[in-house]
Amino acid sequence: MNKKVAVILSGCGVYDGAEIHESVITLLRLDQRGAQVQCFAPDIPQLHVVDHLTGDETSETRNVLVESARIARGEVKNVHELSADNFDALIIPGGFGAAKNLSDFAIAGANCKVQPDVLKAVQSFVAAKKPIGLMCIAPAMAARFFGEGVNCTIGNDPDTASALTAMGAIHHECEVSEVFEDSTRKLVTTPAYMLAQSISEAASGIYKLVDRVLEMAQA
Amino acid sequence: MNKKVAVILSGCGVYDGAEIHESVITLLRLDQRGAQVQCFAPDIPQLHVVDHLTGDETSETRNVLVESARIARGEVKNVHELSADNFDALIIPGGFGAAKNLSDFAIAGANCKVQPDVLKAVQSFVAAKKPIGLMCIAPAMAARFFGEGVNCTIGNDPDTASALTAMGAIHHECEVSEVFEDSTRKLVTTPAYMLAQSISEAASGIYKLVDRVLEMAQA
Repeated sequence: MNKKVAVILSGCGVYDGAEIHESVITLLRLDQRGAQVQCFAPDIPQLHVVDHLTGDETSETRNVLVESARIARGEVKNVHELSADNFDALIIPGGFGAAKNLSDFAIAGANCKVQPDVLKAVQSFVAAKKPIGLMCIAPAMAARFFGEGVNCTIGNDPDTASALTAMGAIHHECEVSEVFEDSTRKLVTTPAYMLAQSISEAASGIYKLVDRVLEMAQA
Repeated sequence: MNKKVAVILSGCGVYDGAEIHESVITLLRLDQRGAQVQCFAPDIPQLHVVDHLTGDETSETRNVLVESARIARGEVKNVHELSADNFDALIIPGGFGAAKNLSDFAIAGANCKVQPDVLKAVQSFVAAKKPIGLMCIAPAMAARFFGEGVNCTIGNDPDTASALTAMGAIHHECEVSEVFEDSTRKLVTTPAYMLAQSISEAASGIYKLVDRVLEMAQA
């Protein structure tokens, strides 16, 4: 198949960056399915750094691109360089980094903005009608990417769902092992760790998301 | 089955900590097979911090236990608390952290020492004849854990293999998709990213290692 897929990371760690399990499972499944993968991340400071042992914010500063390189084993590019011209599909894993670094949804909720380089890159895929997969909290950006009326899921959390609705998205409840699909917009979403109680639960939905995004890229 | 398995992490990132893909694939397979998993790491400073984008050493300091918590989503304990009394098996993923934080193999080679808390914990499994899985560069510690005559693999790198031989281990070449087993000592090793050219190649051997370690724990 050899489809080319871009993956946008948002750091390295669930509380201040990309969720590591979701990111690695995405990369694993893409590789198992024969896709050519390139990771990207914005070259910006993280909103903050969280000690993942205690949950406390620290006084450190870290860069999103540099920390994303840990997940990508060095093979990550500035998202400023990303355009749909060179790829067949795009996937964004979750983790608080999607709501703290790729956007400010964690602070601003329904008034959130998407980081400009990320917004431009993703909207090039929207304009080209190429498939996009968003998991966990990343669908909080769906209305900013696609505009009002986009259909997606973040699982079943009512507060988060109502923020999505306030932005113009149409939220659909979805189990962790399933994906929700907006066929018109070629958008696939899955709850992953918004609902998952274990890594294999997260993997069950992520595998389906990757497989469906690749199928759509094939069409 | 519900076997209890301890996983020792060495930070978060291939160049200064635990290899993230190897660690996550280990956790995924253990969970898929129904094992109960607890992660551990030493509460010590990392040898150093490497910028994974440039490969350069930075002036930062980071703690191995705190960074390991990123991979473990906060669920990691001090390896000082780890004893074979409470577990059926032990697995140690690779990454330079195994050679820089769990031991000083990256600096001292055949004269390396294992971090004392890690050594004590692992030797409790050796004494209890409970199965141990070591992947990637982690088998560099095998002779320190088991003594002379232990059989293991780090793939086919001649320099690394000769350092293992100098410590008293017996090195066996092994493909990335396979595991090498020392049945007497209940030790299973696989090359993972010592040889893997892709994440799915690494996963092929890691899945076999996890499955074999759980089979041995069953016996």
